[in-house]
Amino acid sequence: MTSHSSPAHFADRLLAACQHKGAPVCVGLDPVYERLPASLRSAGPANPATDAQAACAIIAQFCFGVLKAVAPYVPAVKPQSACFERYLWPGLEVYHRVVRQARELGLLVIGDAKRGDIGISAEHYAAGCLADTRFADLGQTPGPDALTVNSYLGPDSLQPFLNVAAAQGKGLFALVRTSNPGSDALQSLSLSDGRSVADAVAQWLAQVGSAPNCVGAKGYSLLGAVVGATKPQDAARLRQLMPQQIFLVPGFGAQGGKADDVKACFKKDGQGAIITASRSVLFAYEKPATSDWQGAIAKAAADLKGQIAAILN
Amino acid sequence: MTSHSSPAHFADRLLAACQHKGAPVCVGLDPVYERLPASLRSAGPANPATDAQAACAIIAQFCFGVLKAVAPYVPAVKPQSACFERYLWPGLEVYHRVVRQARELGLLVIGDAKRGDIGISAEHYAAGCLADTRFADLGQTPGPDALTVNSYLGPDSLQPFLNVAAAQGKGLFALVRTSNPGSDALQSLSLSDGRSVADAVAQWLAQVGSAPNCVGAKGYSLLGAVVGATKPQDAARLRQLMPQQIFLVPGFGAQGGKADDVKACFKKDGQGAIITASRSVLFAYEKPATSDWQGAIAKAAADLKGQIAAILN
Repeated sequence: MTSHSSPAHFADRLLAACQHKGAPVCVGLDPVYERLPASLRSAGPANPATDAQAACAIIAQFCFGVLKAVAPYVPAVKPQSACFERYLWPGLEVYHRVVRQARELGLLVIGDAKRGDIGISAEHYAAGCLADTRFADLGQTPGPDALTVNSYLGPDSLQPFLNVAAAQGKGLFALVRTSNPGSDALQSLSLSDGRSVADAVAQWLAQVGSAPNCVGAKGYSLLGAVVGATKPQDAARLRQLMPQQIFLVPGFGAQGGKADDVKACFKKDGQGAIITASRSVLFAYEKPATSDWQGAIAKAAADLKGQIAAILN
Repeated sequence: MTSHSSPAHFADRLLAACQHKGAPVCVGLDPVYERLPASLRSAGPANPATDAQAACAIIAQFCFGVLKAVAPYVPAVKPQSACFERYLWPGLEVYHRVVRQARELGLLVIGDAKRGDIGISAEHYAAGCLADTRFADLGQTPGPDALTVNSYLGPDSLQPFLNVAAAQGKGLFALVRTSNPGSDALQSLSLSDGRSVADAVAQWLAQVGSAPNCVGAKGYSLLGAVVGATKPQDAARLRQLMPQQIFLVPGFGAQGGKADDVKACFKKDGQGAIITASRSVLFAYEKPATSDWQGAIAKAAADLKGQIAAILN
């Protein structure tokens, strides 16, 4: 776990990793038991509801296989906490094992848990979901390198997460503009001063993230922003409002975001965003159907890298 | 677990429980190891970081004691997921044991996890954090009766939670107006049509929650709203905008919300809200210091009940 022993700034680490791997891309780990390769499921329970621990063992095996398949091509992975939490505590244990395995493979890990609370509750989430918590009896349980957080509760709700991130060389991605159709009902509302709600969130995020202990050597903040790939019209404006934020851009691939749509998330130098694809890589073995699931996933990760590298050149 | 075998509507169950116990109050279960009674900690690890499982055993013992102490006085409890998640998977197991124990004592349980995501991720959260998930190998693991959810992602993000709630007689409380100072940075912004952001969220929540499968026999929706006790000026307006929503009102007691402040959260008939206190009840044995921690907690719960009952009469 090189990244844990190093106090380097998260944004600097992420930019360096993107350069090293050749493209700013991230694979989302959103395992769904019913869609796992038949060769894996054949060793698991026919009905995962009957045996959470056996289902989790198969999910772990799949995730470890995915990590090995994508590690040569992508700098980062984004495990989706919900997919693990649905199996209650055995699922959460597998989530932490996946985080650890990814870090040991040299991947940066963005924990997609979208936590948000205030005061001592936010401190507890920061400790449990982001920090390199180490309980002697649980073995090595490094937290992810970064965590997604929710913006609805306002800037003070982010502070406990920022404290942990600044102290441990970690990052945050706060929700600003999400990729789902219903997000307009809140995020696109027009304020009396002409801004949208998302614009207003972007501006206070930019301010919070500009604190001296938040900005790395390359000028980016450890506080990044989630900006969906399906809203290219908004991305250009948000890019201007948040010059120091790295954008985490979900929605590419299965959710309909196109390569051209994501251009607006980058700065002119081709930096400042990381593009995430989940299902289009994770379940690449479904179409065309193949039993070589790791090969199909590796190829999809390489394709993702190639697509994004192409639009940046 | 009477409430699980009954398909009765959540709002009807909550109103009946409030009437039965004599006041619409709820005790937040936000255990913090360092503040637990010395008599319990003496059997646990000196430093909880060294032994998560031993710390969790003490936390479980404390929570079970709290549940027994408050059950005669309050209709509902609200375990704070963050306080358990900070102990990773052993903490999550204790959280589920606390939920089960509370339900077995006849208490309604509001899981305070503030989850929010879209599509299949929201489905997974609804399955893991709200549904009566039953994995044969994990024993009885009923979900809570209701769950707090985050509104930032918009109405479509709530649908998977609403589906589970409607099918299983459960409820949701979506964040509208929170009790922390920084919440104004988003929730109080003025829209071009004169509403605040919180007003706009309230209006679409009211609409989403008015679907025929959401409204119970007493006219309240299974989709409730979180409205902090520290914003009485907003509560009256939000009460009008959300006639069918039960308000979950945190911030009473330790966060500074006063009894008079919460009046505006109720309808004229004295229904429609449930007032939550956490630290002022949970750590009541600290001031005045007493070794009879269960007695002090029981008294604080009885006081809470009395205070709220008094303002409603």
